[in-house]
Amino acid sequence: MADLPDKSSAFIDWYLAVVEAAGLSDKRYPVKGMNVWTPYGFLARRQLDRVMSREIEATASRPVEFPTLIPANEFQKEGEHIKGFDAQVFWVTKGGSTELDMPLALRPTSETAIYPVFALWVRSHRDLPLNVYQIVNTFRYETKTTRPFLRVREIHFFEEHTCQVDEAAADARVRSNLEAFAKMAHSLALPFVPVRRPEWDKFPGAYYSVALDIPIGGVRTLQIGSIHHYQENFSKPYGISYETPEGNRKPVQQTTFGLSERLIGALLAVHGDAKGAVFPSEIAPYQIVIVPISGKGADGMDAFIGGLATRLQDRGLRCWVDRSEDRPGAKYYKWETAGVPLRLEIGPRESAAGTVTAVDRLGRKGSIGPTDLEAGIVRKLSEFDEELRKRALATFQQSFATATTLEELRNSKHVRVVPWCGTEACGHAIETAIDGSLLGVPESDLPIAVPAPGLCVACHSTGPTKWALAGQPL
Amino acid sequence: MADLPDKSSAFIDWYLAVVEAAGLSDKRYPVKGMNVWTPYGFLARRQLDRVMSREIEATASRPVEFPTLIPANEFQKEGEHIKGFDAQVFWVTKGGSTELDMPLALRPTSETAIYPVFALWVRSHRDLPLNVYQIVNTFRYETKTTRPFLRVREIHFFEEHTCQVDEAAADARVRSNLEAFAKMAHSLALPFVPVRRPEWDKFPGAYYSVALDIPIGGVRTLQIGSIHHYQENFSKPYGISYETPEGNRKPVQQTTFGLSERLIGALLAVHGDAKGAVFPSEIAPYQIVIVPISGKGADGMDAFIGGLATRLQDRGLRCWVDRSEDRPGAKYYKWETAGVPLRLEIGPRESAAGTVTAVDRLGRKGSIGPTDLEAGIVRKLSEFDEELRKRALATFQQSFATATTLEELRNSKHVRVVPWCGTEACGHAIETAIDGSLLGVPESDLPIAVPAPGLCVACHSTGPTKWALAGQPL
Repeated sequence: MADLPDKSSAFIDWYLAVVEAAGLSDKRYPVKGMNVWTPYGFLARRQLDRVMSREIEATASRPVEFPTLIPANEFQKEGEHIKGFDAQVFWVTKGGSTELDMPLALRPTSETAIYPVFALWVRSHRDLPLNVYQIVNTFRYETKTTRPFLRVREIHFFEEHTCQVDEAAADARVRSNLEAFAKMAHSLALPFVPVRRPEWDKFPGAYYSVALDIPIGGVRTLQIGSIHHYQENFSKPYGISYETPEGNRKPVQQTTFGLSERLIGALLAVHGDAKGAVFPSEIAPYQIVIVPISGKGADGMDAFIGGLATRLQDRGLRCWVDRSEDRPGAKYYKWETAGVPLRLEIGPRESAAGTVTAVDRLGRKGSIGPTDLEAGIVRKLSEFDEELRKRALATFQQSFATATTLEELRNSKHVRVVPWCGTEACGHAIETAIDGSLLGVPESDLPIAVPAPGLCVACHSTGPTKWALAGQPL
Repeated sequence: MADLPDKSSAFIDWYLAVVEAAGLSDKRYPVKGMNVWTPYGFLARRQLDRVMSREIEATASRPVEFPTLIPANEFQKEGEHIKGFDAQVFWVTKGGSTELDMPLALRPTSETAIYPVFALWVRSHRDLPLNVYQIVNTFRYETKTTRPFLRVREIHFFEEHTCQVDEAAADARVRSNLEAFAKMAHSLALPFVPVRRPEWDKFPGAYYSVALDIPIGGVRTLQIGSIHHYQENFSKPYGISYETPEGNRKPVQQTTFGLSERLIGALLAVHGDAKGAVFPSEIAPYQIVIVPISGKGADGMDAFIGGLATRLQDRGLRCWVDRSEDRPGAKYYKWETAGVPLRLEIGPRESAAGTVTAVDRLGRKGSIGPTDLEAGIVRKLSEFDEELRKRALATFQQSFATATTLEELRNSKHVRVVPWCGTEACGHAIETAIDGSLLGVPESDLPIAVPAPGLCVACHSTGPTKWALAGQPL
């Protein structure tokens, strides 16, 4: 098996090779940008869906599912939104051989599917807040180059839609979403920075947008999610209003929170290495792979392995015994490429002693057992996650550097932290210099320690500036 | 709140009223036959999906997901299949404002999406059996009247697709699917009969089809799933073949197994009563609802209820405390309509004694605690399921009656068990007499005790006959 391309010098080649070698997606489906979720990739996605559902439901959001198809007249009610998506929409125009009276859009996102029904669900202040989410596939007629998980035409998508009583409540929901995402990101071992996008880069129809960005090497960044405050931009055209305790009718204030399969791409990009994928244990399709090392006189080895696997599964762990005919070395290679957190090697010696040799995906080796074997294995998994988090955080912090001149921006080898006066003109000057985007002003502490921001990097105005992030979004 | 229509004399009216009163689906979405999964309905569906996934994965089937859109040329490779579905397909013809070169079908079922990729996945006999399944939405441009869960245009669908080494292995997979469904049906408390459909009623493209039928009152039946043997009907046009150990290439033999959200409709139809829905505990969105009965001097009642709810949730039970401002009687009514298996009434008296008053959805009342409170509640839930199963089985058995003359068939008040010679002409004569369908010959024991079949009910031929089922499929 050939080595993978070099991650830092040939990122995209490395990425595509890892997706294929790990068996996460099959892109040979005969429609460009619509890929097959293989069993292994699907299991990772199922775990991701569970983490997202758990954390959002912990904030009083309830699951729903709205139809895939949106009538053209509903789709076109909010002007900015339709302008933002029009070029990307797949249209159903025929049913059987009948031309449909009303074309139906395959949802590129679900505002326009959900909000006509929200108008029926919300009557009174007692119906608020209304927090619902769905995990569905969305469709975008992408004209850019597609990449598994990162940019596809059928997108596995998480979207929360909420109605709030007023602007402050909607602001609070944005913050609650940020906290929920921080918990998801902990499970994913994925450090991120929430960034308020500049006006010219908001979601179509939003009042403001907070993106969740991560650095993925050099100047490159990846937006892994977003949270939007819509104010009344959708509730007015869709007629979503409520009766106040005083008997007046008022439009609701709305928010949304979007995540997608791109998070799987982010996991590969952040944790992957020269050997392939590395999955945190909450997402890993298999958390533990047991590789039997055959040998003479291995009485009871099979029973020991089978019993251990069952006990681990009974604890809710995803454990796979690789009994295929490959040699142990080939199995090590395969499961390392696939990113399994923990490998247990069990030969006659281990079996006789009631121990296992454990090697985690970060290469740390040790013996576990014979006492407290399962607890020891669980502990190893959790130590692996901690170390993965620690390493990811260190890399994250090393990915940023300040720049105080446009010249520095032009020579960026990091995601840049720049003082910005807040004007669009200077924003575009920054974008030109870095040949990328002004991502915006972070909503949290900056990832690196910085002094108070000085003069704007572009106009040198003496007015107030803020630290903003600039990079090249993938 | 108005009473529900009568279930036996006005089944469809009763059914629609229950779906609405229980809050399982919202059909006010502006596309006919495409309904909104409300939070409550979605939770039932999520449980159903888990049961289906668990049982099929226990038979070595692995989850996948193939794209929603199928290129027209792939869709049209198998002649019978395309004839069967052509009139029902939604077509995507535009991306943005661009006319697509190749129209894309929204999958009405996924054979034609999956099999071009199976042709890449299967190379050698070592790749067989290949058993994968997906739970996705499918789309059918239905022209008949749509009904929530029973007949919709966007269908939540379970489909297993397998490749087997030969015809006998494919027959064995059909039997394995039947066993897996029997386990699902146990969780659903849903007695069923597997029936081999007559030739003229097979799935388009199948060699043979086994349908899973249930009686739903009077002459009416509901097909709740199907298992098909395709032989080489798809593997030949799609080029799915393998190298035998001897080095020859051979087309695989294929099977599929389909289930859908219709199972939720079946649960309502079979278990529902004059008060509304009744969910078996594995599917119930909430298994337990706690209704606090307020009173004077209720010190510690809140803490008792909160603690109990937490301990039940820690055991993995779906428990909801209804702290809304409605009166207890209104809450009883609401949760009975919604089909919650077990209601716990807790007032100051219960709280002080550490007990609960438990009322199950079949109306059986008792006190639980103070010792072993949670275990007692778990036991009550399992007794509820057993009783539900017992009642459903009794109703099931009472739903069938033999008929040995066409005259009897014409006056059917039951699903009929008839002696049939096996010819299509007599099959159609039976269908005309009962104003419905010859469902076919059961693959299992008949639901009622019968002697050896006598002369064919239609032609009275003295040749060999078999007992077949006839009814009016919904």
